[in-house]
Amino acid sequence: MNVNGTPYRTIWLKPDDPETIQIIDQRNLPHELNIEDIRSVESMARAIQEMRVRGAGLIGAAAGYGMYLATLEASQASAFDASLSASYDILKNTRPTAVNLVWALDRQLEAIGEESSADAKIGIARKTAQEIADEDAGFCKSIGEHGLQLIEEVAFRKPGEPVNILTHCNAGWLAFVDHGSATAPIYAAHDAGLPVHVYVDETRPRNQGARLTAWELGQHGVPHTVIADNAGGHLMQHGLVDLVLTGTDRTTVSGDVANKIGTYLKALAAKDNNVPFYVALPSSTFDWAIQDGVRDIPIEQRGGEEVSFAQGLCDGQVKRVLLSPETSPAANYAFDVTPARLITGLITERGICQANESSIRALFPKNV
Amino acid sequence: MNVNGTPYRTIWLKPDDPETIQIIDQRNLPHELNIEDIRSVESMARAIQEMRVRGAGLIGAAAGYGMYLATLEASQASAFDASLSASYDILKNTRPTAVNLVWALDRQLEAIGEESSADAKIGIARKTAQEIADEDAGFCKSIGEHGLQLIEEVAFRKPGEPVNILTHCNAGWLAFVDHGSATAPIYAAHDAGLPVHVYVDETRPRNQGARLTAWELGQHGVPHTVIADNAGGHLMQHGLVDLVLTGTDRTTVSGDVANKIGTYLKALAAKDNNVPFYVALPSSTFDWAIQDGVRDIPIEQRGGEEVSFAQGLCDGQVKRVLLSPETSPAANYAFDVTPARLITGLITERGICQANESSIRALFPKNV
Repeated sequence: MNVNGTPYRTIWLKPDDPETIQIIDQRNLPHELNIEDIRSVESMARAIQEMRVRGAGLIGAAAGYGMYLATLEASQASAFDASLSASYDILKNTRPTAVNLVWALDRQLEAIGEESSADAKIGIARKTAQEIADEDAGFCKSIGEHGLQLIEEVAFRKPGEPVNILTHCNAGWLAFVDHGSATAPIYAAHDAGLPVHVYVDETRPRNQGARLTAWELGQHGVPHTVIADNAGGHLMQHGLVDLVLTGTDRTTVSGDVANKIGTYLKALAAKDNNVPFYVALPSSTFDWAIQDGVRDIPIEQRGGEEVSFAQGLCDGQVKRVLLSPETSPAANYAFDVTPARLITGLITERGICQANESSIRALFPKNV
Repeated sequence: MNVNGTPYRTIWLKPDDPETIQIIDQRNLPHELNIEDIRSVESMARAIQEMRVRGAGLIGAAAGYGMYLATLEASQASAFDASLSASYDILKNTRPTAVNLVWALDRQLEAIGEESSADAKIGIARKTAQEIADEDAGFCKSIGEHGLQLIEEVAFRKPGEPVNILTHCNAGWLAFVDHGSATAPIYAAHDAGLPVHVYVDETRPRNQGARLTAWELGQHGVPHTVIADNAGGHLMQHGLVDLVLTGTDRTTVSGDVANKIGTYLKALAAKDNNVPFYVALPSSTFDWAIQDGVRDIPIEQRGGEEVSFAQGLCDGQVKRVLLSPETSPAANYAFDVTPARLITGLITERGICQANESSIRALFPKNV
């Protein structure tokens, strides 16, 4: 999507220098936009580990490009396969629970293994990395096209008025290669000339909404308003939200959705006020083995300091301030699970389905 | 309640100097505890206006003591009544919408008017100010005694385990003269030796939970954990909350509750998980004229900068950091309304009642 009028992806091959990858370093957004050159497996691993790049789709793409860099390094090493295997391990250990990471690494390994010369291995790795990135962007684009109809329906009912959409956390293009998941229908509607306005939950404790979603919407020119996570219920009570759109980190085959902490509270408010609540996802986030999300999806607990502190710009520098008493402990649950009964529908790259097993399997019949 | 082992109120007559009032300046809590001497109406007005003192009960008490200072100043003025009347106006204009403020000022005016000599007026004003403060503390103490039984019931069901209570914002002793409303049953239980543990919502955007509730619980020795406002639903889903206790700024005769933004979301989660949701209040917060709280209680909108920024301690100083892009607008709804249907009961100074008109009127038959 656009940054200051110029189309961007989150990761790309550097023009005129095909042995360098470029990424947007997301750590100091929205206050600083830093583009970083990545020339080694080690740099790519650090970029993933330090969350310069983050988000399921983008981590997969970064792993794909990382394996391309791994073939370049292997071709200079004494033993190609040993070098490649070591790089695989380095990249794999960056974010141990990211499903897309291992998936992309394995896809690369298989593709590279089918070629015999080093040059051919490098060529196929570059091609596969591009494919992984393009597929991610393509899936998100399709989600946007399917989700667009939901926004069009609201716009049709209230001509001339903005369609108000509430979103939580960052399921935007910064979490993928392009378009995003929850944001894809929003960008599609905005680009089609529909009047959309987005309420952006700031999404404490890490503020991905205030920092990332607000930034990317603003850069693309989409009208939006940042709100405290506490405000969504009040807005829905008073008819100020037409549609809730979120992403998901993991979706059970029964339609339960694990997403950033607080999503469940917004789904409850949507249900209580008859506001449609949709979750957008590439099908890679389906977990075909889990039925009961509340019971069986493990919830990551992170350090309490993310709750005790807030990070932002102060005197021209990114700093953090202590909010609570130094001696008060804090708990930091990173995700919660929204039961399928609260979800109006799932927007996938193949179309929209209901949040239940039969409807999901009708769209994705071959998965087990 | 205790601060570092010493019992405190939020406001009191200075010992050995009965013409001086002392307050806790709450602005830099929890990072700095400042006790301030107040010797003039102008100082008291500034303390209320700048929120050095805040909270319904405490504002009423501050207004009462302010009128005592007003009689001292009037006795030195050329015209006692004109001076007193001017002080009344100065104090009244500090927080125009605070119901307890005007109530305390009027109560003082009436009491002072019944005396004829300046000395007698000063004497009755000091006595009335003390009465207002003592009554506020007494009402909160009664709320604590009535609410204690709810905690005892849980403790009885799970002997030896802590009773987990979730609270939102600061309905603690810092908002009153002592004890607090939502915190009163917690302090009563803790002081009675029951094992209580409190989940403290940080309560964005102004963080009254992380700043004030966490501080006062910690100082009194009550175990507690600060959480993001997003986390309560997850905790309730997993049986980690036995009871929700909040305060209220305004309660309709039908039992709808206007309280800090985000209260409604927690009430929804409590309902969805069969967690009892109680609201504690001195009866002064009842609005006997309103039936439908969602429709008829006006909700204050404050400056967006409270959402865009967070305030805390950085390099030894209280500073604020910008969280979102400079160009992103923010909306800041200060309160929301929780419908009576989501509320298990109201804890008042006269006992516990259901959140409906007949139950409320049975406890308070004389109010109209």
